[in-house]
Amino acid sequence: MSNPKPSAPATGAANTLWGGRFAGGPAEIMERINASIDFDKRLYAEDIAGSTAHCAMLVRQNILSPEDGEAIAAGLGQILAEIEGGRFAFRRDREDIHMNVEARLAELIGPNAGRLHTARSRNDQIATDIRLWLRAAIDRAERHMQALQAALIEQAERHAATVMPGYTHLQIAQPVTFGHHLLAYVEMIGRDRGRLADCRKRLNECPLGAAALAGTSFPIDRAMTAEALGFDRPTANSLDGVSDRDFCLEFMAAAAITGMHLSRLAEEIILWCSDGFRFIALSDAFTTGSSIMPQKRNPDAS
Amino acid sequence: MSNPKPSAPATGAANTLWGGRFAGGPAEIMERINASIDFDKRLYAEDIAGSTAHCAMLVRQNILSPEDGEAIAAGLGQILAEIEGGRFAFRRDREDIHMNVEARLAELIGPNAGRLHTARSRNDQIATDIRLWLRAAIDRAERHMQALQAALIEQAERHAATVMPGYTHLQIAQPVTFGHHLLAYVEMIGRDRGRLADCRKRLNECPLGAAALAGTSFPIDRAMTAEALGFDRPTANSLDGVSDRDFCLEFMAAAAITGMHLSRLAEEIILWCSDGFRFIALSDAFTTGSSIMPQKRNPDAS
Amino acid sequence: MSNPKPSAPATGAANTLWGGRFAGGPAEIMERINASIDFDKRLYAEDIAGSTAHCAMLVRQNILSPEDGEAIAAGLGQILAEIEGGRFAFRRDREDIHMNVEARLAELIGPNAGRLHTARSRNDQIATDIRLWLRAAIDRAERHMQALQAALIEQAERHAATVMPGYTHLQIAQPVTFGHHLLAYVEMIGRDRGRLADCRKRLNECPLGAAALAGTSFPIDRAMTAEALGFDRPTANSLDGVSDRDFCLEFMAAAAITGMHLSRLAEEIILWCSDGFRFIALSDAFTTGSSIMPQKRNPDAS
Amino acid sequence: MSNPKPSAPATGAANTLWGGRFAGGPAEIMERINASIDFDKRLYAEDIAGSTAHCAMLVRQNILSPEDGEAIAAGLGQILAEIEGGRFAFRRDREDIHMNVEARLAELIGPNAGRLHTARSRNDQIATDIRLWLRAAIDRAERHMQALQAALIEQAERHAATVMPGYTHLQIAQPVTFGHHLLAYVEMIGRDRGRLADCRKRLNECPLGAAALAGTSFPIDRAMTAEALGFDRPTANSLDGVSDRDFCLEFMAAAAITGMHLSRLAEEIILWCSDGFRFIALSDAFTTGSSIMPQKRNPDAS
Repeated sequence: MSNPKPSAPATGAANTLWGGRFAGGPAEIMERINASIDFDKRLYAEDIAGSTAHCAMLVRQNILSPEDGEAIAAGLGQILAEIEGGRFAFRRDREDIHMNVEARLAELIGPNAGRLHTARSRNDQIATDIRLWLRAAIDRAERHMQALQAALIEQAERHAATVMPGYTHLQIAQPVTFGHHLLAYVEMIGRDRGRLADCRKRLNECPLGAAALAGTSFPIDRAMTAEALGFDRPTANSLDGVSDRDFCLEFMAAAAITGMHLSRLAEEIILWCSDGFRFIALSDAFTTGSSIMPQKRNPDAS
Repeated sequence: MSNPKPSAPATGAANTLWGGRFAGGPAEIMERINASIDFDKRLYAEDIAGSTAHCAMLVRQNILSPEDGEAIAAGLGQILAEIEGGRFAFRRDREDIHMNVEARLAELIGPNAGRLHTARSRNDQIATDIRLWLRAAIDRAERHMQALQAALIEQAERHAATVMPGYTHLQIAQPVTFGHHLLAYVEMIGRDRGRLADCRKRLNECPLGAAALAGTSFPIDRAMTAEALGFDRPTANSLDGVSDRDFCLEFMAAAAITGMHLSRLAEEIILWCSDGFRFIALSDAFTTGSSIMPQKRNPDAS
Repeated sequence: MSNPKPSAPATGAANTLWGGRFAGGPAEIMERINASIDFDKRLYAEDIAGSTAHCAMLVRQNILSPEDGEAIAAGLGQILAEIEGGRFAFRRDREDIHMNVEARLAELIGPNAGRLHTARSRNDQIATDIRLWLRAAIDRAERHMQALQAALIEQAERHAATVMPGYTHLQIAQPVTFGHHLLAYVEMIGRDRGRLADCRKRLNECPLGAAALAGTSFPIDRAMTAEALGFDRPTANSLDGVSDRDFCLEFMAAAAITGMHLSRLAEEIILWCSDGFRFIALSDAFTTGSSIMPQKRNPDAS
Repeated sequence: MSNPKPSAPATGAANTLWGGRFAGGPAEIMERINASIDFDKRLYAEDIAGSTAHCAMLVRQNILSPEDGEAIAAGLGQILAEIEGGRFAFRRDREDIHMNVEARLAELIGPNAGRLHTARSRNDQIATDIRLWLRAAIDRAERHMQALQAALIEQAERHAATVMPGYTHLQIAQPVTFGHHLLAYVEMIGRDRGRLADCRKRLNECPLGAAALAGTSFPIDRAMTAEALGFDRPTANSLDGVSDRDFCLEFMAAAAITGMHLSRLAEEIILWCSDGFRFIALSDAFTTGSSIMPQKRNPDAS
């Protein structure tokens, strides 16, 4: 085999290599495939927080002049206000949240906006944004799960002596108390909270400074940006910091296990409300009716 | 145990059973949990098509007067236009797409709008809507997959004699042709199309008339609505028709397998473009640059 | 960067590149990682059937002498008897089912055993074995699922007029008949059978002759081996034939959906047997007791 | 609807309710479905350890006489030796590992063997066994993962100055060192170890004493058995202790994420060994040949 590399799909021929059959023209398809703004716009607050911290660090390290720093910080603040006020026009041709913010910044303060991108890349930006976003999601879930435990404990105390049948295989087995049964869920939710807390601790390292993958030769201060954003420390390895998303998988696993516990509780509530059991009754505020059967009260909509 | 049913969580006590700890008040939380309009609004066209077919059937069966039928059909047409024109206000307190449409219909034509809901339930409505929506999604995917096969075949014919190395374990093994390699994907996509076609055939039965779960005593004509909506036949069993979503799982499985094939193709394109291989080059229209490394041309954004 | 390839991990140094820390020595670890015989030995019947068909084809195509063909066929028959009689010693150092069979064949008939491997590779062998094995698994499942439908129909006919409550959200909604309820499962299992039948049809192509990936220059007759093994046709593309396992994914998806239906049925049986419902009773032959609670009869063991 | 419960499937009729179509007879099928010994026999060491600890506790609490305790402990020791010596006949009609051990114990020491089951159930036994088994599995994995990190660090130190290309999208991006690249995996494996350690800590509670679900009225000492088996504490809630398997899900998630990291490393090794890269070479001890292409050296078998 004299030439192992196919000669035909060379530069010229390749120009229409994959697009020939698609009527809309290659560039338009590519833009639609490539753009992530439709879903990563939800990272706006984290992206702007990261840029603000990066900007302050660049100034303190004398990489950015105080004047540029002030203009950039003010511009970022204005963009945040525009987005939260519903006055920001996200543009797909600006691809992602990073470019949407930067391009708008250039419109607001002129070409010096570009200096914000010194010593960083979209790779370490997105790795930082996702961690910040997920950390906040964990904190929100934590509050709700704690409230659920408190509600369960309150009911358990009230029903510490309320006897009910314990089941195996849905056959009556041994008497337990309603309070004891509810406290089983307090244990489960407790472990779920532990899993989320462990996930939070593990992801709470700052990738900023890893740049595209190999770091930067600018004299940045990674500890400063990490601290400003509430991270415990900078990530130790730049390749790892920008390329791994294991924390997303860990979060999804912890959330799925939590969902399993909540589904089990919901199923028990449905069962306890059913005609064959009638152990509890939900208030009208938590039942719904049926559009075809007016006599019904459902634990959920039919 | 003389009384296996705990007496305490009775009607009165139960009124605040689960909601006591949640500050926003039970009803507001329940509305947010219960409402599906935020995601089922995408079913608007299918829901209106189903209602229109149901209305025409009710008229022909003399369950609905021609006058009511005309008013309802006209109202549904106006609602469709409002939604597609961006002038429809979806309301969460109207819970789902069915109630949003019906409530708007009542605003437009008055209380006779309620007669549209004769002999049906939201249970058979949603089962119908999802099938129609998924069927259209399959038909869209089918067109794109056929176009992909055509593009692969066109390239394969051009490179029927272009020799390239065949690999196992990414070690050069035996010579093949580029055309032969591409035709492997034509086979894979062909099976993917077959899976989607099988899924489509299996889901293409109409649940309308199953009502909540047990059918209806009105003299409806299920064959007529099934035919009007392009279904092959009505579902045979009402409980099965409203309660099973196996077709969604089948679709997701078929889509996931297709995604695996497309991912494999994409990975090969990335590999073939890489410095160590350089078998192909993508046109500028399908490459992107880097925000930090101006010398780069990527098969994707960095 | 004058030399992009790291010079240090060259041949010499590389000899202990990954193994230095593992006490047992590299070769032993590699054998354990690499060997698949512990799980692919279950493919013995399919592997021998494939070899027998391949051997007969080689003889008819004059690639193998009739004498060699007879010796090989007889040897394969003896190996099959040894395995089924529990007298075959599977050896991990012979790696997989293919090598275990071939090495034993060489012991039985001498070095001419090697001629069986003419015009094939372990790659097309394993792709064939898995299809044959899965096809048989589908056929077994098909028989059981048909029996389940028949049992359900028998009960449904007996209880065509037995009224029971129909539920939504486990709240009594509308009366149905027990027969009607059971027929819902007949529909579900019917679709499950359809999915398995579609999967069977799609996988029923013979990869033999694809060899490692690029086919063979021997004048083999792929239609003959395909037919002998009950395949509908040979696979059309050799790269696709040896490298894709989409049919395994399709089977697993169909089996998982079937499992979901069976789980739903099992859950209903448990519910119908429970104290709160008591709609049905299982015979003693299908209930179990408890090791700690002698009064219990379970739908399952506790 | 005067009688919501179907009358026909009553005791008599129900005797052949589900089994009528299955030729082998109900009892035989039930035994095959119900028996778990084929897979839970791997828990033998944990099951015997749990029984030994339970026995010692019963003696110290004066629930069991010292003589019975000694006989039981000696019998359990003999059963362990029989199993590890391959001289134990596991029987499917004894259902599971617990009954296989107990029935053998009765053969060895007579009917007093039954006293071992005082104040416990198979429900808390299996919940304990699985935790012990998984804990040991984590400890094994931990040792291997630590060894992998050490091997990676050793190579990283050797190649601290070996320059290699860093890639994004498999396009050469920026120079890195081979050592730096390897240390990215040290970080990943470090987090994987953290996940397993967190999982171990969370599962390390002892369900013994929860019995079937509601505990026991015998004056047992749960702290004693927990400590004897190396648990940090007894589980706090008996219903939770016997019914939840969230720790299995957590382990599987952690193992899957680890597998993703190892797969990424393996893919890079394959890539670095490939013709287009040739950054590293594996020693003969870690490569395999091909049955059809004698010139090949594979990172894996073909």
